[in-house]
Amino acid sequence: MALIFVTGNRHKFEEVSEIAENQGLKLEMRELACREVQADELEEIARQSAIDACASLGKPCFVEDAGLFVQALRGFPGPYSSYVFRTIGNKGLLRLMVGVSNRQAEFRSVVAYCKPRGKPRVFTGKVKGSISLETRGTQGFGYDPIFLAKHIGKTFGEMKISRKNKISHRGRSFEKFIKWYLRTH
Amino acid sequence: MALIFVTGNRHKFEEVSEIAENQGLKLEMRELACREVQADELEEIARQSAIDACASLGKPCFVEDAGLFVQALRGFPGPYSSYVFRTIGNKGLLRLMVGVSNRQAEFRSVVAYCKPRGKPRVFTGKVKGSISLETRGTQGFGYDPIFLAKHIGKTFGEMKISRKNKISHRGRSFEKFIKWYLRTH
Repeated sequence: MALIFVTGNRHKFEEVSEIAENQGLKLEMRELACREVQADELEEIARQSAIDACASLGKPCFVEDAGLFVQALRGFPGPYSSYVFRTIGNKGLLRLMVGVSNRQAEFRSVVAYCKPRGKPRVFTGKVKGSISLETRGTQGFGYDPIFLAKHIGKTFGEMKISRKNKISHRGRSFEKFIKWYLRTH
Repeated sequence: MALIFVTGNRHKFEEVSEIAENQGLKLEMRELACREVQADELEEIARQSAIDACASLGKPCFVEDAGLFVQALRGFPGPYSSYVFRTIGNKGLLRLMVGVSNRQAEFRSVVAYCKPRGKPRVFTGKVKGSISLETRGTQGFGYDPIFLAKHIGKTFGEMKISRKNKISHRGRSFEKFIKWYLRTH
């Protein structure tokens, strides 16, 4: 039986499916109209979303919430990365960083799994890097073309899914989640 | 009996108290730990917050949600104005607008009132203006020093509360709300 991934983002689903299938786990994408809560911590948002999605479906399922945290911008765009991308985009973010020497940033991903009458389980993944001076690459989605992975010299936009999954925040959170899931189910 | 305004923002409370007291209505400030939902529309956020706050208090109360919507930035920072202010601030917003000729912006305010076993009532107020070239004035809070009210040539940061209340988004939403409240209670 396929495990339900509640998301409206096909790019995310494709990335994660590759990780899951390598472990022999099949995923099913499901879009729900649940509202996320506002919070400065991804964990809190994902946890609540998993509870709501599970209540709405009446079945075990998981959600994922991710964000880009830029040090010089006090963590902006952080938990609101998706909204910020839809409005000011990579162009806006690069503009905020013009002349800023501290370009350190971190991508974070939180997977939250919940089953009926159960408490949500949360798995996090992080990857350190920096904001590039201009967009590079056309792969991935969102902030990928401006995020330079540490010690690699390439942006996530210049990597194939399989390469990105090996080092990315999402690859890490899902690896933890899938390992736990396969051990306990 | 004082009417409960659920907010953590003392500046807002002071602005609104002045409007209410002019109409003979006393307000009480109450801070609650309720989480706002994420949505692109303020109405939806305020409506849900009023329902949650009323359920938590077991008493009639109201909330207010406001945002600055910049046309050239596709409505950014919009419903996440508070988070964006805490991170990139007015400096960041001005930076995003460097060289942008369309500086049109709108402040929006939504008041939502709810009583136990009742449906929330929503009142909106808007004010058109533009983003100034630099911060001006030290009054008000948030984006006030960079918001130029249309036809006035002053930013909200250069106005006293009483003057700002006469033309502001918040002044308008509260005038509607208080008028309705006094008529029906």
